[in-house]
Amino acid sequence: MRMTKPLNIGLIGYGFMGRTHSNAYKRVNDFFDTGYRPVLRAVCGRDMEKATAFAAQWQYESVETDWQKLIARDDIDAIDICTPNNTHAKIAIAAAEAGKMVLCEKPLSMNVEEGERMVAAVENAKVPNTVWYNYRRVPAVTLAKQLVDEGRLGRIFHYRAQFLQDWTIDADLPQGGAALWRLDADAAGSGVTGDLLAHCIDTAIWLNGSVRDVTAMTETFVKERMHNLTGKVEKVGIDDACAFLCHFENGSLGLFESTRYARGHKALYTFEINGEHGSLRWDLHDLHRLEYFDHREESIIRGWHDVHVTDGDMPYMDKWWVPGLQIGYEHTFVHHVADFLTDLTAGRATSPTFAEALQTQKVCQAILASAESASWMSV
Amino acid sequence: MRMTKPLNIGLIGYGFMGRTHSNAYKRVNDFFDTGYRPVLRAVCGRDMEKATAFAAQWQYESVETDWQKLIARDDIDAIDICTPNNTHAKIAIAAAEAGKMVLCEKPLSMNVEEGERMVAAVENAKVPNTVWYNYRRVPAVTLAKQLVDEGRLGRIFHYRAQFLQDWTIDADLPQGGAALWRLDADAAGSGVTGDLLAHCIDTAIWLNGSVRDVTAMTETFVKERMHNLTGKVEKVGIDDACAFLCHFENGSLGLFESTRYARGHKALYTFEINGEHGSLRWDLHDLHRLEYFDHREESIIRGWHDVHVTDGDMPYMDKWWVPGLQIGYEHTFVHHVADFLTDLTAGRATSPTFAEALQTQKVCQAILASAESASWMSV
Amino acid sequence: MRMTKPLNIGLIGYGFMGRTHSNAYKRVNDFFDTGYRPVLRAVCGRDMEKATAFAAQWQYESVETDWQKLIARDDIDAIDICTPNNTHAKIAIAAAEAGKMVLCEKPLSMNVEEGERMVAAVENAKVPNTVWYNYRRVPAVTLAKQLVDEGRLGRIFHYRAQFLQDWTIDADLPQGGAALWRLDADAAGSGVTGDLLAHCIDTAIWLNGSVRDVTAMTETFVKERMHNLTGKVEKVGIDDACAFLCHFENGSLGLFESTRYARGHKALYTFEINGEHGSLRWDLHDLHRLEYFDHREESIIRGWHDVHVTDGDMPYMDKWWVPGLQIGYEHTFVHHVADFLTDLTAGRATSPTFAEALQTQKVCQAILASAESASWMSV
Amino acid sequence: MRMTKPLNIGLIGYGFMGRTHSNAYKRVNDFFDTGYRPVLRAVCGRDMEKATAFAAQWQYESVETDWQKLIARDDIDAIDICTPNNTHAKIAIAAAEAGKMVLCEKPLSMNVEEGERMVAAVENAKVPNTVWYNYRRVPAVTLAKQLVDEGRLGRIFHYRAQFLQDWTIDADLPQGGAALWRLDADAAGSGVTGDLLAHCIDTAIWLNGSVRDVTAMTETFVKERMHNLTGKVEKVGIDDACAFLCHFENGSLGLFESTRYARGHKALYTFEINGEHGSLRWDLHDLHRLEYFDHREESIIRGWHDVHVTDGDMPYMDKWWVPGLQIGYEHTFVHHVADFLTDLTAGRATSPTFAEALQTQKVCQAILASAESASWMSV
Repeated sequence: MRMTKPLNIGLIGYGFMGRTHSNAYKRVNDFFDTGYRPVLRAVCGRDMEKATAFAAQWQYESVETDWQKLIARDDIDAIDICTPNNTHAKIAIAAAEAGKMVLCEKPLSMNVEEGERMVAAVENAKVPNTVWYNYRRVPAVTLAKQLVDEGRLGRIFHYRAQFLQDWTIDADLPQGGAALWRLDADAAGSGVTGDLLAHCIDTAIWLNGSVRDVTAMTETFVKERMHNLTGKVEKVGIDDACAFLCHFENGSLGLFESTRYARGHKALYTFEINGEHGSLRWDLHDLHRLEYFDHREESIIRGWHDVHVTDGDMPYMDKWWVPGLQIGYEHTFVHHVADFLTDLTAGRATSPTFAEALQTQKVCQAILASAESASWMSV
Repeated sequence: MRMTKPLNIGLIGYGFMGRTHSNAYKRVNDFFDTGYRPVLRAVCGRDMEKATAFAAQWQYESVETDWQKLIARDDIDAIDICTPNNTHAKIAIAAAEAGKMVLCEKPLSMNVEEGERMVAAVENAKVPNTVWYNYRRVPAVTLAKQLVDEGRLGRIFHYRAQFLQDWTIDADLPQGGAALWRLDADAAGSGVTGDLLAHCIDTAIWLNGSVRDVTAMTETFVKERMHNLTGKVEKVGIDDACAFLCHFENGSLGLFESTRYARGHKALYTFEINGEHGSLRWDLHDLHRLEYFDHREESIIRGWHDVHVTDGDMPYMDKWWVPGLQIGYEHTFVHHVADFLTDLTAGRATSPTFAEALQTQKVCQAILASAESASWMSV
Repeated sequence: MRMTKPLNIGLIGYGFMGRTHSNAYKRVNDFFDTGYRPVLRAVCGRDMEKATAFAAQWQYESVETDWQKLIARDDIDAIDICTPNNTHAKIAIAAAEAGKMVLCEKPLSMNVEEGERMVAAVENAKVPNTVWYNYRRVPAVTLAKQLVDEGRLGRIFHYRAQFLQDWTIDADLPQGGAALWRLDADAAGSGVTGDLLAHCIDTAIWLNGSVRDVTAMTETFVKERMHNLTGKVEKVGIDDACAFLCHFENGSLGLFESTRYARGHKALYTFEINGEHGSLRWDLHDLHRLEYFDHREESIIRGWHDVHVTDGDMPYMDKWWVPGLQIGYEHTFVHHVADFLTDLTAGRATSPTFAEALQTQKVCQAILASAESASWMSV
Repeated sequence: MRMTKPLNIGLIGYGFMGRTHSNAYKRVNDFFDTGYRPVLRAVCGRDMEKATAFAAQWQYESVETDWQKLIARDDIDAIDICTPNNTHAKIAIAAAEAGKMVLCEKPLSMNVEEGERMVAAVENAKVPNTVWYNYRRVPAVTLAKQLVDEGRLGRIFHYRAQFLQDWTIDADLPQGGAALWRLDADAAGSGVTGDLLAHCIDTAIWLNGSVRDVTAMTETFVKERMHNLTGKVEKVGIDDACAFLCHFENGSLGLFESTRYARGHKALYTFEINGEHGSLRWDLHDLHRLEYFDHREESIIRGWHDVHVTDGDMPYMDKWWVPGLQIGYEHTFVHHVADFLTDLTAGRATSPTFAEALQTQKVCQAILASAESASWMSV
């Protein structure tokens, strides 16, 4: 174990993502040798009491209630943005201008214009930056990337993905405020498109290259909900469901769908790629498995391989336990931090950078424009 | 077992569907008590030698090489059309005009215009008619219909289906002629849309009601193939793959895809329906299983039910073996014949009739028009 | 299609097995070219009315109520025994002595002594004979045999099988008589051992060779049941459940279990074989699939192959439909008849012969003796 | 979050289990509110260099190379034993006599006699004690216990379990020394019986009550291996595989098997329970799922429920993420520590105690005696 340098973290936001990131920072050095050691210097949130409780829980050294003050502190190296989407741009740009590294939750921004300014800010400031599209770092997904890059599938014909949930079907569920900002268009920008499809698109671009054009439909099944911030029943501005067809630049066809109205699916993110020689599929409900098909195998024993991605020669898995023993969801964030720290030591960018995440933003924007105009849109 | 009346069958076409239908006629009375007994009076095909061999194999009493002669025979009650799609209309119309019952392979016709004339012909002639959308009569699919009709799913939000195959990826596969007429646009009318999506659409309309509008994309991955009829390399006119989004009249969203370029899938027809209270899903590779989810169940034991559709109180299954023992693909045709004969005895139409199958044709036509125009099309 | 010779069948017993065999005889020539054509000459049963109805249903030409008369008929070539186990020996021996071929339902006999006399009878008479251990002829199981015989698994370490049902848990279910003779020790000889484990043992010996010794336990959970034949509540003489450990002659370890008290399993016959290089597993609830594991594959794509046994190069499947389309339970009997007829043409024995089935009987007897004595028994 | 008291841990052994326990101590307070806070005071191992590296990796405050010195330290509250099995008794007894709490890796001891002395020591000293049978605290397994305790299965008929691995098939693998002490009979006491079956038995007793008697067989497939400690090829003293049948006190039948020679299984621990009303099954390769069957459900939708155990109302899951997102193997140890600390606060014993784990030891000893004597043994 080599000597490690401290990396002083200032976390903004103490919700669900605040927890996953804090856990990642605290665990990374027990398992990965990266050259750096995250230090939980400060957590920032508007509610002092909640921020203080979070700091106690996760052992942050200090608390801020004004993110501008946090950014101004000399003892902070990196700003981690875990706040609602409508705050990403202003925080990230200010942080970059202050010379801080920036780790931003996905999606990058509310729209392409914001995203472009964010990219410009981090590139002008030359600060390390990354967006937390964590599913790339599920070992089975990283292994899928490796298999695709090795050319095992040959020419790609089809890519399909879905992200299905069922938690907003109850019409009595309100919108807005703390845990429900994802249902509030002002805070979230969009519904499932930015929240769930953004994950699917990020993985798709990573595995299968750029998207050329899209045709989409969106739907809001529950048209009005009580708003927690106003106390009134208000129009729902987000998309409850979104599906789109697309062409990838490599000539393959894409099919994507996301919804929060699919009974029986808690967080079922799936993808499948079909190529000339073989296919791959994966789903988040059994994230430690990758299914692989190779048509070149002898026909009488040909079938989908059910690969239990828990061996030491599979991505990230030499750091954990022994073959057959699963890791879970939270480990994807540990891997992201580990890669970020290793890249920092090596002076490399950590994918997806803001610039890469902007590509996903462009597809999201084309989707929403296509749904609104009921026409194909170029990305 | 009550007395049965003979029903004299004249089968046109001795390909794959000729075999499945012949098997159904021969087996139905061993298992079902319908009031009728099919008699394999004649098989008709242009190649006398092949038709004769087929007749010997399946014990048809006679052979014809001219379908018009077959239709003219007094000893034939019902004409069964198993020929390529471009012959359905003329044969069906002539048969109806001759007062014969008509059982026609799917898809009904090459296009809506043809289909409308076919419907008019059978309705004017008042002859029993049906189209072999056999997957409705997989017991698990029939059970799904029953569960939907009982209202168990509540308001429907989503319907998705796919039909994935991988048998035409090899660019050296020729098009046209006997076994490969499905790759020849002149004979088939379209590619996967009429061949595979038509099944998906028939089931969808049956389970979830009419389709309002669609946006589609099609692709032909292999642009030219040797043509068996001309001996030359010719442009491929069919769609190798097709995907579309749609709105159903009930307000739910639809997502459909079919391809012959999905490695690892031999004939994977799947569908899933998501409603307010529950969901259903099924796939053809394990056709004896239905998956059912009911959100109203107690939360700690809530999960998808894996229903092995082999018990005597499930559709059609009292006629076969004992619980746990599967039936297969061919039984769907036996069930269709059984229902047709039972309906005949009762003086009822057998679903899907030509008129019902025309609805599927309208969706198919809208899909192809949408793909060509790159725009949403009303059905 | 070559010319076929008639094979005149005399079927004894019109229960569940009478139906599966009749179906097999009627269907075999539609799909297989064997040189013979079964003719349903007569069905025999003690109840004239039921036998007559069965004959009408399945189109048997005549009916007998005395099996000795059936055996005496000159127009019968083969006797098919579908009666309760306690009648197998006397019928089979009489049939052999009359020079008839004998096809006997499993298990061969009530005990080893009976079985030995049956083997002697058919061997002395030199009549073709076979026992209907039908599961050998599930295509996936036949494929497993092929893979084992090719040496793909290497040295075998483990064999395990189970046959789980749940249909006798209700204590109000009576024993004895028509459909319930399997619960009557006088008619069945034993419970799950002869009924279900016999299947598991037959397959095991076929795939993995002879069994050397066993230690077993049996249990009768419901000690008394109303007896249909006496009208009184009587002691239950059969084993409701049986499990045993064994050594195979090849040095591998065996583990077997059967019960009719396993909730959730209708007819779950499973087996798994583990060898030095690979493994195989199969189950009857999805009988068209074989799972195959080969440790010599590259580690990052190594996993159980899920083989959908529906392609034309897999056992028996060139005779049925197209890849992806399943066959079911009843087809195993069609395959058995097809092999019997083909072997007859070729002058070969059809496995399992009476002599081979006697080996299974010996294991069953050792199991019951072991359970009774609570000690290891040699086979 | 209430104030926490420190609990000073002295860990002995820095192998695989040393890592899982250390991780648990470090993580527990981020997620659970127990009243205590583990402090990693010291790690002890015979190799100073390795122990020091481990301490640096996991942030232990100090290092010892003599476990007796560790036990003598005043600043240690609890001794955690992660050493090979042949050292458990002496360390645990000394620790108890020194008034330390004792957390001991499984299996408790080399044999029943040792185990009895260990139980006596902790009971005489009245020190909190527990044995790390971690699989009880997989949320799906804990949920199974809850469902059984609620009486949902009714009278139990069958319990079966297996623990299958494939990592010792290579005959060139040596025995003994650091990572391979599990293959050395002197260090491990037995092979799969103490290592893997002990887990199965612990869960079985917890879910289904005591075992009355057993009949077992063991096998050592590779008879000689190079010994890392002597450098010579020596006889292998452990059991490579073990299977046993048993009766439970509640009248149900048990069937257990474990091996390290089952190709395709990395760490496949499975169990299934069949009761009058329903059944449960689980496996370690997908540890976040529980399958549940209830026969009392309406027949047409009856089937195994596939329960994704990730919701907040399921055991332990309110402490982690959101529905649909899995946790993994390591979390079972976090749960064990959390329960231990909570029980400490409440003044309760933490199951399994040494006394409870002794019951498993008794079954293991009966198994080995049965295998040696080839006879049934009472427990």
